[in-house]
Amino acid sequence: MCAEVLLRTKDQFIGSLRDGRTVYFKGEKVDVTAHTFFDPVINHLGIEFEIPENPQYRDLVTFSPNGKDRYSRYFKIPQDSQDLLARSCIIDLGTRLGGTVVLLIKEIGTDCLFAFNIISKQMDAKLQTEYFKRVSNYHNYCMKNDLAMAVAQTDVKGDRSLGPSDQEDEDYYVRIVEEKSDGIIVRGAKAHTSYGPCANELIVIPTRNLSEKDKQYAVAFAVPANAEGVKMIASPFGGTTRSEFHNPISSSHHMVESLTIFDDVFVPWERVFMKGETQFAGPLAVTFVQFHRFTAISYKAPILDLLVGAAILVAQMNGIIDASHVREKIARLIAYSETVKGLTRQSALNCRKVEETAVPDPVYSNIAKWHFASNYHQHVALVQDLTGGLTVTGPSEEDLKSPVTGEYVRKYLAARRGISAEDRLRVINLIRDLTASDFGGYNELLQIHAEGSIEASKITLLREYDARPCVDLAQKLAKVKASSF
Amino acid sequence: MCAEVLLRTKDQFIGSLRDGRTVYFKGEKVDVTAHTFFDPVINHLGIEFEIPENPQYRDLVTFSPNGKDRYSRYFKIPQDSQDLLARSCIIDLGTRLGGTVVLLIKEIGTDCLFAFNIISKQMDAKLQTEYFKRVSNYHNYCMKNDLAMAVAQTDVKGDRSLGPSDQEDEDYYVRIVEEKSDGIIVRGAKAHTSYGPCANELIVIPTRNLSEKDKQYAVAFAVPANAEGVKMIASPFGGTTRSEFHNPISSSHHMVESLTIFDDVFVPWERVFMKGETQFAGPLAVTFVQFHRFTAISYKAPILDLLVGAAILVAQMNGIIDASHVREKIARLIAYSETVKGLTRQSALNCRKVEETAVPDPVYSNIAKWHFASNYHQHVALVQDLTGGLTVTGPSEEDLKSPVTGEYVRKYLAARRGISAEDRLRVINLIRDLTASDFGGYNELLQIHAEGSIEASKITLLREYDARPCVDLAQKLAKVKASSF
Amino acid sequence: MCAEVLLRTKDQFIGSLRDGRTVYFKGEKVDVTAHTFFDPVINHLGIEFEIPENPQYRDLVTFSPNGKDRYSRYFKIPQDSQDLLARSCIIDLGTRLGGTVVLLIKEIGTDCLFAFNIISKQMDAKLQTEYFKRVSNYHNYCMKNDLAMAVAQTDVKGDRSLGPSDQEDEDYYVRIVEEKSDGIIVRGAKAHTSYGPCANELIVIPTRNLSEKDKQYAVAFAVPANAEGVKMIASPFGGTTRSEFHNPISSSHHMVESLTIFDDVFVPWERVFMKGETQFAGPLAVTFVQFHRFTAISYKAPILDLLVGAAILVAQMNGIIDASHVREKIARLIAYSETVKGLTRQSALNCRKVEETAVPDPVYSNIAKWHFASNYHQHVALVQDLTGGLTVTGPSEEDLKSPVTGEYVRKYLAARRGISAEDRLRVINLIRDLTASDFGGYNELLQIHAEGSIEASKITLLREYDARPCVDLAQKLAKVKASSF
Amino acid sequence: MCAEVLLRTKDQFIGSLRDGRTVYFKGEKVDVTAHTFFDPVINHLGIEFEIPENPQYRDLVTFSPNGKDRYSRYFKIPQDSQDLLARSCIIDLGTRLGGTVVLLIKEIGTDCLFAFNIISKQMDAKLQTEYFKRVSNYHNYCMKNDLAMAVAQTDVKGDRSLGPSDQEDEDYYVRIVEEKSDGIIVRGAKAHTSYGPCANELIVIPTRNLSEKDKQYAVAFAVPANAEGVKMIASPFGGTTRSEFHNPISSSHHMVESLTIFDDVFVPWERVFMKGETQFAGPLAVTFVQFHRFTAISYKAPILDLLVGAAILVAQMNGIIDASHVREKIARLIAYSETVKGLTRQSALNCRKVEETAVPDPVYSNIAKWHFASNYHQHVALVQDLTGGLTVTGPSEEDLKSPVTGEYVRKYLAARRGISAEDRLRVINLIRDLTASDFGGYNELLQIHAEGSIEASKITLLREYDARPCVDLAQKLAKVKASSF
Repeated sequence: MCAEVLLRTKDQFIGSLRDGRTVYFKGEKVDVTAHTFFDPVINHLGIEFEIPENPQYRDLVTFSPNGKDRYSRYFKIPQDSQDLLARSCIIDLGTRLGGTVVLLIKEIGTDCLFAFNIISKQMDAKLQTEYFKRVSNYHNYCMKNDLAMAVAQTDVKGDRSLGPSDQEDEDYYVRIVEEKSDGIIVRGAKAHTSYGPCANELIVIPTRNLSEKDKQYAVAFAVPANAEGVKMIASPFGGTTRSEFHNPISSSHHMVESLTIFDDVFVPWERVFMKGETQFAGPLAVTFVQFHRFTAISYKAPILDLLVGAAILVAQMNGIIDASHVREKIARLIAYSETVKGLTRQSALNCRKVEETAVPDPVYSNIAKWHFASNYHQHVALVQDLTGGLTVTGPSEEDLKSPVTGEYVRKYLAARRGISAEDRLRVINLIRDLTASDFGGYNELLQIHAEGSIEASKITLLREYDARPCVDLAQKLAKVKASSF
Repeated sequence: MCAEVLLRTKDQFIGSLRDGRTVYFKGEKVDVTAHTFFDPVINHLGIEFEIPENPQYRDLVTFSPNGKDRYSRYFKIPQDSQDLLARSCIIDLGTRLGGTVVLLIKEIGTDCLFAFNIISKQMDAKLQTEYFKRVSNYHNYCMKNDLAMAVAQTDVKGDRSLGPSDQEDEDYYVRIVEEKSDGIIVRGAKAHTSYGPCANELIVIPTRNLSEKDKQYAVAFAVPANAEGVKMIASPFGGTTRSEFHNPISSSHHMVESLTIFDDVFVPWERVFMKGETQFAGPLAVTFVQFHRFTAISYKAPILDLLVGAAILVAQMNGIIDASHVREKIARLIAYSETVKGLTRQSALNCRKVEETAVPDPVYSNIAKWHFASNYHQHVALVQDLTGGLTVTGPSEEDLKSPVTGEYVRKYLAARRGISAEDRLRVINLIRDLTASDFGGYNELLQIHAEGSIEASKITLLREYDARPCVDLAQKLAKVKASSF
Repeated sequence: MCAEVLLRTKDQFIGSLRDGRTVYFKGEKVDVTAHTFFDPVINHLGIEFEIPENPQYRDLVTFSPNGKDRYSRYFKIPQDSQDLLARSCIIDLGTRLGGTVVLLIKEIGTDCLFAFNIISKQMDAKLQTEYFKRVSNYHNYCMKNDLAMAVAQTDVKGDRSLGPSDQEDEDYYVRIVEEKSDGIIVRGAKAHTSYGPCANELIVIPTRNLSEKDKQYAVAFAVPANAEGVKMIASPFGGTTRSEFHNPISSSHHMVESLTIFDDVFVPWERVFMKGETQFAGPLAVTFVQFHRFTAISYKAPILDLLVGAAILVAQMNGIIDASHVREKIARLIAYSETVKGLTRQSALNCRKVEETAVPDPVYSNIAKWHFASNYHQHVALVQDLTGGLTVTGPSEEDLKSPVTGEYVRKYLAARRGISAEDRLRVINLIRDLTASDFGGYNELLQIHAEGSIEASKITLLREYDARPCVDLAQKLAKVKASSF
Repeated sequence: MCAEVLLRTKDQFIGSLRDGRTVYFKGEKVDVTAHTFFDPVINHLGIEFEIPENPQYRDLVTFSPNGKDRYSRYFKIPQDSQDLLARSCIIDLGTRLGGTVVLLIKEIGTDCLFAFNIISKQMDAKLQTEYFKRVSNYHNYCMKNDLAMAVAQTDVKGDRSLGPSDQEDEDYYVRIVEEKSDGIIVRGAKAHTSYGPCANELIVIPTRNLSEKDKQYAVAFAVPANAEGVKMIASPFGGTTRSEFHNPISSSHHMVESLTIFDDVFVPWERVFMKGETQFAGPLAVTFVQFHRFTAISYKAPILDLLVGAAILVAQMNGIIDASHVREKIARLIAYSETVKGLTRQSALNCRKVEETAVPDPVYSNIAKWHFASNYHQHVALVQDLTGGLTVTGPSEEDLKSPVTGEYVRKYLAARRGISAEDRLRVINLIRDLTASDFGGYNELLQIHAEGSIEASKITLLREYDARPCVDLAQKLAKVKASSF
């Protein structure tokens, strides 16, 4: 492996965030590299840059398009199932090393680049545009500079029962407010941009199908995070405790989302990837989502494993591992976990080739997503059930360490022979942090809403599923003539 | 209504907590009436003492045993279904005024007094003891002084697969370590004592069936919260934010639990309600639970109503109230809520009279408890689904109020015409506080574990259900002879 | 009890069916009192007439409107919760004696009479019609002659996405084709009329809301089952085996439904209860359904008890009653059963008085119906799981009795000590008949579709539920102003 | 493809069943090739022999071990995932051509041969026996003669809470009653032997782990179906109607099971594959099951497709395909179907090599089995819900064809424009036959019990799952030392 790995270090990444960007936290402008709230976020994202330095992972997480230089494998346009499986694997790896919290600064961005790759070719073919060249240049730019990218897709939407042009405020969906000789001016806001405040690039795409009258809303582009007019209001939710004991995960691993405002931001032509092509807005949104739902289910594996592992660990500690109802619960957790993981692999294995790009099978990725999202809470409940009420009624770290109370805590909260009170509390704290805390609540919402809602998964499934063979079988057995389907 | 209401005021209650009791919080001894953590707890409990001052509620929440003085109705030993329905009603009322957080300082204590009332009569009849007199005196003492009572039942248990006498540490279950001429000395610890640090009295009962060799563990008694040797380590979990905007419920309504240590505490004879009668330990535990599960399901009504109301409110705000999948979710929430509430009333209506006391029907109370507990998370998921990702990715109160960001928040996060961003965020914050926060996590654990686990409900149900008529019907229709059941 | 009971005997009932009616079975006209298919139906319905002859039941199942003569209690217009509970009780009794198969010849008819009673008063008040008098006379006529009534409500509907007037064939909904001086001529067909071929009277009502243009479809009336032009095509499904051993229930208890055709049938004015009042078509349909869903959930009790009883019996026989997973399954069956039964009583207890008639609470009746219908299959699966594969792979009655095979069957299929192979097979046969046979399949469809579909229950629930207090609570806690609901 | 295909024709297969075998049906000895009950069974099994004659399928369903002769691919000992996927594919094909009813005369037999292959090698290695040679010879014998094999595993068991040696009757498990110079004599009975009466060979293996004292029960062997002393009592359940219209599947596709009695049957040594090696009884049973559960989930694909197809077809006919709740139901059916199918492929892809044989991954096969079995009834309910009550209340074929009633049926039961009453009834009949009939009930039991119960799947899953990485992750994040697992 003599090729040179051209990736940034963690320090380079952190340094790149000191670029004058406008990020607000609790009403004030902040430097994300020097603010306690952002500490665990930045450190967490740093993992992305540490992984390739580990010889054990280097080959897995990099690739060489020309046999010479090695870049982050995220940028490799998937050619087949193996590429998708490898991609799934590195998403899993990063999330696992990130304490089950996804590192979403290359995954989501490249999901979007892959969608641009496909749709730009289709636009060029149909409309004689020249988007593919721009897309390709931008892809190489990000790859060669090893950039962190956020994707801003979800418009704030106003009244959800109305389309963009019919809203009370025409800025409820991001739109082109002016076209200039060298580019466009955009205005609007996107909700919940994951890691926006800590990315180098913001990539913006439409969130839905658009009709002809929505022309100004059919816009896709990329801007640096410090572009003039870009303002990010970071959300404070999801857990801010800094006790490693009480919050073993969230004290050092944390996402951040922003309400991302485009206050008349200029975008030069080479960074504009859609401008008014309303008929391609829906396909772009859908294609992005096809890649992104596959990312979504790939990064669930670590949290699924953790639910299984935590359940077994706490049941062992509590001395109930052999009880029949406990075994039933653990079996259900395993089945839940492996069903999602198995269907994820099926999505890679059943991929289809579109515009020379391997697209994960949307039937399996959406079933996996739906299965995961609609059953998450119930499986969290199983783990909480095994853990016991002490999860929220137990003593604090300070009680354990205090000279006046420590002795009582150690005496009375020891569990099964050989398990100290401290170890028991550590396991309980892990489970509370993961499932029954600000961070746990964040997780619940994430499972339901991130990468598309449960309803969206069903709609996609119905649209993508080829039910023809099923209906044929029914018609054949019923001995009726083929009706229109 | 000329009878005099002899209840304490909120101030009298608070004053009574300044009695030298030993409460630890984060490793240090604290005065619960003068500590910010306890503020919302104390204020919340104060509601219990404000309710009777409201003429609208006075008759409902008080009763007059002698036609002259009026006491808290909680102390009325239920005679029939109507008494149980009234009791259910005042539990609901207090919880509702308490923002869905139960006020558990008279409910649980009287649940236990009712159990003492029944079991003491049975012990006296069978063993020629004189417990009933003690119990009766103590009941009157608490009633006349309008005391707040906590019940400490769950021992810390050590290895759950072993009985009390077989543990590595013989103090894993509370026990009598010495018998003196004027009383007993007890040692041990009880886990998760609800409101222990804010109660006047601690009532202690066994947590399980005991065998003959567990004689020293067959002990029930009451001590004042400031009794020498009683040490309470308060748990810090369940949400400590003090922002009314971000945490509209938990910032002003809060429970507290303690690990309650009995460090060789003396109990005089008149406060000892069981001493070595192992064969009655199980019945006492069970009888308490029969009352307490009824309390449990009675105080769920407000949170059930809130889930329904919040779901409708947020769906209206988001403009999706007429969508078919939204209607399905709301219908499921209503059915969930009313099933629990309807079965609760059935438990009161099907009560049985034991020792001149109306005991709620355990079949219906346990089905209600099981239905509630095993479906809570799934219904929380429905509400979160309707609310949207903004629940954990939205801006803070400070962002809304800041001169630099407020304008963006107000512009972009307004919802359906007529709904301001502030109102929208308030509704979202309510739902996050209730379901996706430290407090929400606390709620999830509470639903599963408080008043007995889900497994305990099933066991009770199987034990209490009279399946004879069902088996008879099956045998009759199968035309087989009655086999032993 | 000196009043005279004026009810018909079973023989009188059977005799009354020999009235020249036109019933087809498998393409041929038949005499229902002399056809093997109808034998178990007729014998089953006879139970309705035998019950009042039993002194144990007489008071329960009859009532005396004038203190002198006693009629079937079914005809008593409910005045309060007690009347509804008594009605529920006699529905349960008849079904229980009928081997879990409902006797639906007075229940459904009186459900409809009660709806006529309410709606006729409302029509008279609003439209100055004189329907109430006709309704009242007809009610008395049926009561005094102790008639068996079927209700034909569900039109055949054609394309379900279109209304009556928009159908390809204007006869897809029953309609008035001609108005004469002495009455009307009706045409059309109603699907699945329960017990139509064995009733004395057919009562016809609209199946849905109608718009102004559907005037000819707004028709309600009653005709004798032998009216000229009435033709009933009886359905052969639901099990026709006549082996008491293999089909212990369905060999002697059986419903029958018909496709009921009105081939230009004349109805005299005194039997016409709606004619063109389109605005009352929906209310009549809904009011009937409010009574009928209460009937529906009342007659589920015996089959619920049987599922519980059969599960226990077979688990005992198989020697697995103490296995943890078996106990879990039985607990779930009990909870399922008692939830439906408890909610049924709540529906009676929460009744509302409309036009001097106690109407069962639709919130509880629909939740009960929904809970029952949407969970039936899953609970059947539990019973089948406990029973074992032998249910469909075991030997026949003839094998048991044959001299060549009987010995093997008796030797090898004996179960736990003391349980003979014959008894074991009887229990298994009961479960197969109930759940895994033509009759079992009939049951599954009945649970889902009879008395309104699952979707209909949800729609009714949403319409009838007063969510105002829930929304108020949410608004109060969120501190937002009341928005329109 | 010049190699010669050495498979039997359908006629040769049927002829081979006229071998004097002892099969009883309804208490009498019958010739299975000349009895109306067996007609659809024999014709159905004939498909197995017709498939290879179809050039489209020939390569898929045959293989050539020596590059010369081609035999049924079922006999190919799987070497890798591809072999397992091909095996899964031909099981699916046969079942699909068999109207969703599995052809189980080569599948199950070869599942057992593969298990013999593995276990015999292990026995030989450990115990210096020479079983592998016998097994190998027998495998070749069956392959070369293209035999139909049934497997008899499930003993009748008596009291399930007792082991073989502790039963009241020592014949409750098949056992060796005598050892002779040239072989053994066996006695006992096996329950539900699929297709036993129509197989050429009966292969017998133990059903469970055995302890040292159960030596006489540790027996595995094969006998021809006409061996002296073998008596098969065929079960009559699962649907016997012969109307193609009413029962489009079960009238021509049917399984048959027998209670198979070994009345002192002699087995020569070369057909004895285990004799007293108690420690290998469990492994043999388990290894067979590992192959057989994979077979099980492979043959579910056609019925899953049919549920999806029938649901779509009937929803289209009823004109409700676009209703939101209908789409939800169809999406759920698709997800159910594809989850099982996807996990099945994962089981093949994750296979492990044992004794040079590819064994399907038991984690995925058991999750697939569990998912299928525990959700089948609920998905059947969805299809029944979409179909409507007419499923069990509609007219018969004779009504449709009768000159007196046919016209009414055709007029009134036509559905959406263009769908005739006959076509509508055909679709409804298909669904009734599949889900709500004797055959439908048979299916329900089959899904739960065939190839091992739901509980068995959970036990296997827990035993086979490697939870170590999950527990490691939990320990790492909780920062506790590795405890024993």
